[in-house]
Amino acid sequence: MQFGFDDRTQALVAEMRDFFDTHVLASEKVFGEQLDALDDRFAFTRTQVVRDLQAEARARGLWNLFLPAGSDPDGLGAGLTNLQYAPLAEISGASPNLGPVAMNCAAPDTGNMEVLHLFGTPEQKERWLTPLLAGEIRSAFAMTEPDVASSDATNVQLSITRDGDEYVINGRKWWITGAMNPDCTVFIVMGKTDPDAARHRQQSMVLVPRDTPGLTVLRPMEVFGWDDHEHGGHAELVFTDVRVPASHLIGEEGGGFAIAQARLGPGRIHHCMRTIGIAERALSLMCARVDERVAFGRPISEQGVVRDWIATARIEIEQLRLLTLKTAWLMDTVGTRGAHTEIQAIKIAVPRTVQKILDNAIQAHGAGGVSQDFPLSMMHAGVRTLRLADGPDEVHVNSLAKAELKRQAAARG
Amino acid sequence: MQFGFDDRTQALVAEMRDFFDTHVLASEKVFGEQLDALDDRFAFTRTQVVRDLQAEARARGLWNLFLPAGSDPDGLGAGLTNLQYAPLAEISGASPNLGPVAMNCAAPDTGNMEVLHLFGTPEQKERWLTPLLAGEIRSAFAMTEPDVASSDATNVQLSITRDGDEYVINGRKWWITGAMNPDCTVFIVMGKTDPDAARHRQQSMVLVPRDTPGLTVLRPMEVFGWDDHEHGGHAELVFTDVRVPASHLIGEEGGGFAIAQARLGPGRIHHCMRTIGIAERALSLMCARVDERVAFGRPISEQGVVRDWIATARIEIEQLRLLTLKTAWLMDTVGTRGAHTEIQAIKIAVPRTVQKILDNAIQAHGAGGVSQDFPLSMMHAGVRTLRLADGPDEVHVNSLAKAELKRQAAARG
Amino acid sequence: MQFGFDDRTQALVAEMRDFFDTHVLASEKVFGEQLDALDDRFAFTRTQVVRDLQAEARARGLWNLFLPAGSDPDGLGAGLTNLQYAPLAEISGASPNLGPVAMNCAAPDTGNMEVLHLFGTPEQKERWLTPLLAGEIRSAFAMTEPDVASSDATNVQLSITRDGDEYVINGRKWWITGAMNPDCTVFIVMGKTDPDAARHRQQSMVLVPRDTPGLTVLRPMEVFGWDDHEHGGHAELVFTDVRVPASHLIGEEGGGFAIAQARLGPGRIHHCMRTIGIAERALSLMCARVDERVAFGRPISEQGVVRDWIATARIEIEQLRLLTLKTAWLMDTVGTRGAHTEIQAIKIAVPRTVQKILDNAIQAHGAGGVSQDFPLSMMHAGVRTLRLADGPDEVHVNSLAKAELKRQAAARG
Amino acid sequence: MQFGFDDRTQALVAEMRDFFDTHVLASEKVFGEQLDALDDRFAFTRTQVVRDLQAEARARGLWNLFLPAGSDPDGLGAGLTNLQYAPLAEISGASPNLGPVAMNCAAPDTGNMEVLHLFGTPEQKERWLTPLLAGEIRSAFAMTEPDVASSDATNVQLSITRDGDEYVINGRKWWITGAMNPDCTVFIVMGKTDPDAARHRQQSMVLVPRDTPGLTVLRPMEVFGWDDHEHGGHAELVFTDVRVPASHLIGEEGGGFAIAQARLGPGRIHHCMRTIGIAERALSLMCARVDERVAFGRPISEQGVVRDWIATARIEIEQLRLLTLKTAWLMDTVGTRGAHTEIQAIKIAVPRTVQKILDNAIQAHGAGGVSQDFPLSMMHAGVRTLRLADGPDEVHVNSLAKAELKRQAAARG
Repeated sequence: MQFGFDDRTQALVAEMRDFFDTHVLASEKVFGEQLDALDDRFAFTRTQVVRDLQAEARARGLWNLFLPAGSDPDGLGAGLTNLQYAPLAEISGASPNLGPVAMNCAAPDTGNMEVLHLFGTPEQKERWLTPLLAGEIRSAFAMTEPDVASSDATNVQLSITRDGDEYVINGRKWWITGAMNPDCTVFIVMGKTDPDAARHRQQSMVLVPRDTPGLTVLRPMEVFGWDDHEHGGHAELVFTDVRVPASHLIGEEGGGFAIAQARLGPGRIHHCMRTIGIAERALSLMCARVDERVAFGRPISEQGVVRDWIATARIEIEQLRLLTLKTAWLMDTVGTRGAHTEIQAIKIAVPRTVQKILDNAIQAHGAGGVSQDFPLSMMHAGVRTLRLADGPDEVHVNSLAKAELKRQAAARG
Repeated sequence: MQFGFDDRTQALVAEMRDFFDTHVLASEKVFGEQLDALDDRFAFTRTQVVRDLQAEARARGLWNLFLPAGSDPDGLGAGLTNLQYAPLAEISGASPNLGPVAMNCAAPDTGNMEVLHLFGTPEQKERWLTPLLAGEIRSAFAMTEPDVASSDATNVQLSITRDGDEYVINGRKWWITGAMNPDCTVFIVMGKTDPDAARHRQQSMVLVPRDTPGLTVLRPMEVFGWDDHEHGGHAELVFTDVRVPASHLIGEEGGGFAIAQARLGPGRIHHCMRTIGIAERALSLMCARVDERVAFGRPISEQGVVRDWIATARIEIEQLRLLTLKTAWLMDTVGTRGAHTEIQAIKIAVPRTVQKILDNAIQAHGAGGVSQDFPLSMMHAGVRTLRLADGPDEVHVNSLAKAELKRQAAARG
Repeated sequence: MQFGFDDRTQALVAEMRDFFDTHVLASEKVFGEQLDALDDRFAFTRTQVVRDLQAEARARGLWNLFLPAGSDPDGLGAGLTNLQYAPLAEISGASPNLGPVAMNCAAPDTGNMEVLHLFGTPEQKERWLTPLLAGEIRSAFAMTEPDVASSDATNVQLSITRDGDEYVINGRKWWITGAMNPDCTVFIVMGKTDPDAARHRQQSMVLVPRDTPGLTVLRPMEVFGWDDHEHGGHAELVFTDVRVPASHLIGEEGGGFAIAQARLGPGRIHHCMRTIGIAERALSLMCARVDERVAFGRPISEQGVVRDWIATARIEIEQLRLLTLKTAWLMDTVGTRGAHTEIQAIKIAVPRTVQKILDNAIQAHGAGGVSQDFPLSMMHAGVRTLRLADGPDEVHVNSLAKAELKRQAAARG
Repeated sequence: MQFGFDDRTQALVAEMRDFFDTHVLASEKVFGEQLDALDDRFAFTRTQVVRDLQAEARARGLWNLFLPAGSDPDGLGAGLTNLQYAPLAEISGASPNLGPVAMNCAAPDTGNMEVLHLFGTPEQKERWLTPLLAGEIRSAFAMTEPDVASSDATNVQLSITRDGDEYVINGRKWWITGAMNPDCTVFIVMGKTDPDAARHRQQSMVLVPRDTPGLTVLRPMEVFGWDDHEHGGHAELVFTDVRVPASHLIGEEGGGFAIAQARLGPGRIHHCMRTIGIAERALSLMCARVDERVAFGRPISEQGVVRDWIATARIEIEQLRLLTLKTAWLMDTVGTRGAHTEIQAIKIAVPRTVQKILDNAIQAHGAGGVSQDFPLSMMHAGVRTLRLADGPDEVHVNSLAKAELKRQAAARG
């Protein structure tokens, strides 16, 4: 056991830190202005600043770092393990709207690229994976539905029906992240192909190009008042007799649930890595603010309650990071399935803890903290929503406890 | 000691409940549509639905209920005690953007009307109090400043300088609630008239009409991503050599701090009353949602953790309401000053507790909870901000503890 | 609605306060010494100090105050309502081992006296109620069993079998409070008379004198390391073919569950009242300690975190007291059954909140706080245990939530 | 970075696990019986079971494992790093009264042995270190005083005055762990040799044999009702003109503070390691209990709230363990001083988190949980007290926050 990063990781972290400090952070303000100037406020990938950042990241070798070494025989990514990628993702997360996209490591494209990489046909890869890896197009992942508790995947109702050489799709999705961006040209859509099959064999996934007739982007969903146009928003979609060729099926019929599971593990840990970056930034902002503000004759940083927030944040961040790193190491050594409990653990622990840290950072900022002048309330919306995304905390808590009870019962013999 | 409301209050509660259920709640959706159709999205008082609700409330005798019997010799209000007003304010609060304004009981106008009522000259009353009581104009209260921790009122920097028959005002304010509404025609502005006076005698208040040269409404502040245009937003204001007649002074020079204190007591308890209404609505929404949603084969309402949220919310709401009612009773019987500790107690306890209730209600709603389809995330933004408005929790906690320590030391002799 | 106590209550509170400050508090130290000098450390009622306090309380009219006016046609008690009794019970609770017993208002005798008063035969009353009211004997209530989750009363397994003119009792009980005291001469024992009856008609209660053959007082149970000999301990009892005359049945066969329910309502609120007294004492001790101790150059009472504890304690105590008082008022006006939800609410809220207050008070005391030099750790043991006594929190939380869901569903129509 | 233990550690863990499961756990009951049979209940090292366990541990090579490789050139210990020792200490901690002493790795002797090892003269080592390493005698560390907040070491008042070839000691100490055991034959006493020296140069340490005239073991302190006789209790000591030869000085005059600091780092991490073992045992007990108990028709382990406790405990334990292991690794690689912040972090995080876990485990056990039938309430007393031992949480929180603010300010430049 040892807790230091290897040389390659340390070098990449230094590169990434320099890129982040000198380019990403400095671009936040102008990004907002360029977004306001767009015809379509959701087309964030068309801003000059995003294009410039992507070019810079690419030049520095900070591109497509997310593809794990173990499942990338073609060498499309940077060949990093999850453990090596973790500190890089963390840094990028501290600027949620610019960091990840600058490196082409933003959700949901990362997960979609992995799905195509692992399960796509050569034709699918050529048409969608290649331009995604090049940052030329964007994609979305359509799973959550408005009418059912989607944490239980068997509740998914959208129907995908085979009709000759085509699939016909009918149903409704919401919270489809990135889908308001007109550059998001393809959707991976999960639905039911066989309601009569075994519980985990009913679902399949198909690729649906944005311009397919019958597909309506109904409205943008808001998150705590934010429309998240900075990263493509979240759409409600209506599918009415949408037809795609049968060749748009990913993997096999009935394989949707398994693919979704394979996709979720990496997706969850990436979210956690980036969220730890958010926590670090919140802590930095909090420390700066309380040092500079004076109330009742002394800096706010001398108040005992504020110090309690700061110390608690530091201690919690250290713990969250270590658990996330260990989880990454497990994924690298025993696989995503072997790291199932740890992935659930960080999926539960990171957002709820960072939500508290953000809440304290906001409080420490006074009224400014809730405003657009600091990124804290935007971060709060995103982090709070992670407690619901990919299943609410309670589902994972229940599942993790069940596994623990089983393990303990086995140990008792 | 007894815990039942008197007959008049019970009758008013029944009237208010009917008005709320049949008119206010039913208007929420169309209010949003009418707002979207306005030229100026902040001019919410120009929507037909607000005007209709105000007419209906007036016809039912639910108008200007806030003015406390004890300080209203002229009979401008309904002659209610704070204790009688409490359950009515609570009901109105459950629809934060429509309930209070429908009854002309919305902040910050209520506090401003009280200030004019108690401290205004006959001319000031005629020009501003009369149209405010009639709901014809709106007002704002400009105290908080961007550059200092405004919880410490001695930090206030905006200067108000006497120059012949005029005051000249220079400085900057932010978070001026309601001020984005063009119908908000007057601002009560707090600033320093004498930096060399004793600490609590440096401030004064002056009335500044909206159209006074030199006054710039710089930008709308956002609250967790919301611009709160539904009740007039929150403005950042710049005062550059703004001149008003000396007769626009409220009370006496150096009296600003005392007036602010007198204004804050009722303002704080009104916020608490309305916030309890928010908590009740959140609990109702949560119960309805978990009864109707099914996950893993049974209604979410059968999950133990969800039941814990519901029970805890009910218990906490009961406690908050009782403490708020007792505080109102104290204000009625021993005055605002005598109820100082209790006002601080509810100022601290209500928002932080209701924030948790809202957070759980959001979680119980799944992804819908963070969206614009339910009022929960909007309510969260408002309630969370109350933990900062009129001084952050920590200032009040410290002050309340100091008073308790003093009281206990005296008891020890 | 009004929040002041009536004149009689104010007079009694003044008397009680004087008695408590001048006699009860002053006796705590010597009580410990007298206990140590006893042959049987559990025979606390044989200490001189308890006898003296009882005589003094009786002389002051502070005796048997607990019997509620509404269910005491014979005038055995002081004729107080629950609301009038509340502040008196609170004061007594601040010295948990002496206050209640001094006034003959200590659990479990109070509940047992109520049971005998409401359901006892004339013979039962003469033999046990009269000496209990006179403070001459003590009693215990034997319900909880070691082998089952006793929060579910249908789990109770001890058998009570009719055999001619006798009942034969076999089984095991634990946590029988007061039963280690040799002066505890009678047990009210709950068991099953008919395992085949409807779920809530299987249990009955019988009176079992201490010296009945076959009844073994097996061992004292400990509570967080304390044996609670100061109030008679908690015994584990074994019943082996214990025989009592059929006339020792309380009420009717199958009526045990109903009697237990009737007993629990008042019992729970009395515990809550006294626990609020504990909280007040903890807050006083905390304030005194932090004022007198200096660390790093200033009194601990100036530390922000300590002030947070103090303010939070004050606010929470006020809320708990108001909810308890309202519950008492409801019991007086609509009966114990009508106050069911409120009784559950305080049963849940009071111990968990006061546990936190005690924990902070202990922390504020430094190492002294966990020691025998202050009553805090003893209080912690008792209050913590209340979260399990009469059913763990979780049972009540679940039940209260169920009632709320039902009420809300009805309101939705 | 990697998270697996090396081969030697894995082998030792297996040995330790076997020793613990087959010997230590099985001895807990008989240990209690043997203690009860002793003339002096505090003389726990005289029980046969402790002697047998020590012989067995020694035979297995599980003896004196605590002495860190880096500071043990003489090879007195097992030559383990802190990181290697961590999982072994954790296992031992799960039986707090037997595990550590079985391996001669119990506080406060471990710290005292380190002090003698690092700072003792050859004579001191021969007289005290050798028999301590052999488990023949026991020792205590006398620092905390009743009259001052001892978290601030400059408050220490006991005087140590040079008088010819002797030191004369006057003062009072309390909470001197292990000192009630008559086999505890030597005390390391911290006091003031020079009140006029610089703040951190006023203190010195001297060795005081138990039988020195003028030293009175006044009374045993209790911890939440426990006297902890199972590991020698906690004594209050009075020093009245106690005289020891000048050669009993440890290190140099004025060096006491520095030695105390050197001693505290390892001491704190050892406590944390063992406390994590307590948490694991509590979780095991909780899982077993809720699986076996049935309430309202289903095992308690199916209740959602109980599952929340279990999942949360598992997640928190993983985080605490990782942070503790990383801290051990830092101590091994950059030294105790370089790991200062991390040592503070675990000192704060571990006890407060494990206190919660224990509280939930107790609740899950029902009434049994607070009793002597399970080790949970005893563990609670010990863990709760750790939040005060070696300085209360608040002191460390404040210090850690200060360091973080400084670090952040430096990063801002």
